[in-house]
Amino acid sequence: MSIAILGGTGPQGRGLALRFARAGRPVVIGSRESERAQTTAGELNSMLSGAAQISGDDIRGAVAAAGEMVILAVPYSAHNATLESVRDLLEGKILIDIVVPLADGDPKKVDMPAAGSATEAAQALLGDEIPVVGALHNVSATTLNHLDQRINCDVLVCGNDLAAKEKVIELIRLLEVEAYNAGPAVNARCIEAITPILIRLNISKKVPFTHAGIRIWAPSA
Amino acid sequence: MSIAILGGTGPQGRGLALRFARAGRPVVIGSRESERAQTTAGELNSMLSGAAQISGDDIRGAVAAAGEMVILAVPYSAHNATLESVRDLLEGKILIDIVVPLADGDPKKVDMPAAGSATEAAQALLGDEIPVVGALHNVSATTLNHLDQRINCDVLVCGNDLAAKEKVIELIRLLEVEAYNAGPAVNARCIEAITPILIRLNISKKVPFTHAGIRIWAPSA
Repeated sequence: MSIAILGGTGPQGRGLALRFARAGRPVVIGSRESERAQTTAGELNSMLSGAAQISGDDIRGAVAAAGEMVILAVPYSAHNATLESVRDLLEGKILIDIVVPLADGDPKKVDMPAAGSATEAAQALLGDEIPVVGALHNVSATTLNHLDQRINCDVLVCGNDLAAKEKVIELIRLLEVEAYNAGPAVNARCIEAITPILIRLNISKKVPFTHAGIRIWAPSA
Repeated sequence: MSIAILGGTGPQGRGLALRFARAGRPVVIGSRESERAQTTAGELNSMLSGAAQISGDDIRGAVAAAGEMVILAVPYSAHNATLESVRDLLEGKILIDIVVPLADGDPKKVDMPAAGSATEAAQALLGDEIPVVGALHNVSATTLNHLDQRINCDVLVCGNDLAAKEKVIELIRLLEVEAYNAGPAVNARCIEAITPILIRLNISKKVPFTHAGIRIWAPSA
């Protein structure tokens, strides 16, 4: 059951590939250039034990190789075009959209698409037959790539297909992180927009941390 | 330096009145009926030591009595009308907007105003002369009213006037809770929308808590 990570040569994609592969899942990194994906896959495999199975392919090859889960981790500027290029291959699969529509040139801001959020834009583009689940927006790429650290936050998961969300929550828990059903796709408008707030805190000089995440917190019983 | 809490007879307002009064700040609860505000003030004072100074008045009387800080804690349906009714009294003061535009009949959803968020709507209504700071949206009213519990989350503070935000952050820290500058007023679109996600988690049967908040979290150095 390979997981495809489109945009897997970027920092978020690399970190997720490492974490899922370490948890025992084969990963296929998808990139516009398959050679670049294969180079990255080799680098990442060398960081893990010999059992790790990360491979690389072009975008369409990675989607075709995916068992069920396809993670979209491209920059926002490539979000729609990437989905359009693989739409016909996604039937029967689940699209996990982790893209945050950061404003061009200012990662402290979002520039939300007309659809309301990247997750909603993806669902509109792919149609109701292919479930889109928004997740993993607020996880620091730095944390993901530091394999000696536990992931420092909870993951809010949203989407309109409950069964798909539950599968994605189960998948994310392989990363030893708590994931919560945060409601329908419309909630991506909030969840995606948490990321630039965290980036703002990280670059501010007033906080003692640089890779903030969020946690759901409650008084102990 | 009295703090006015408009809508201070509601659960969020009562809890904030108790917490600020316990921290030594005089509080004036504002309600449409001053008698009701006075009754609530009496109840709250009796829950605290004799030194607590909570009083009650009608909405305009409460704003007039405020030193600098006026907290708007009315239901969203009364948000704009309340601000219009006190606009002339707010000069030289800071409006702290804690209102979440929950959808009518469904607290798991927001129904965002055309301005983008309640905080932005308030700023547009009051004009640039009166700083509006969004804050305290995600704090559980139940937690606020359980004085034996520490507040279980961090507070994200947003607004377009940095000096006003810094004063509000200082004020909120009286409640022994961490408050962060989360950017300009536009970020209220995200921060206000976190509340229905927390409400959804609280009423779901899949989580072990009922008064969730959020925390900014980072790996320890």
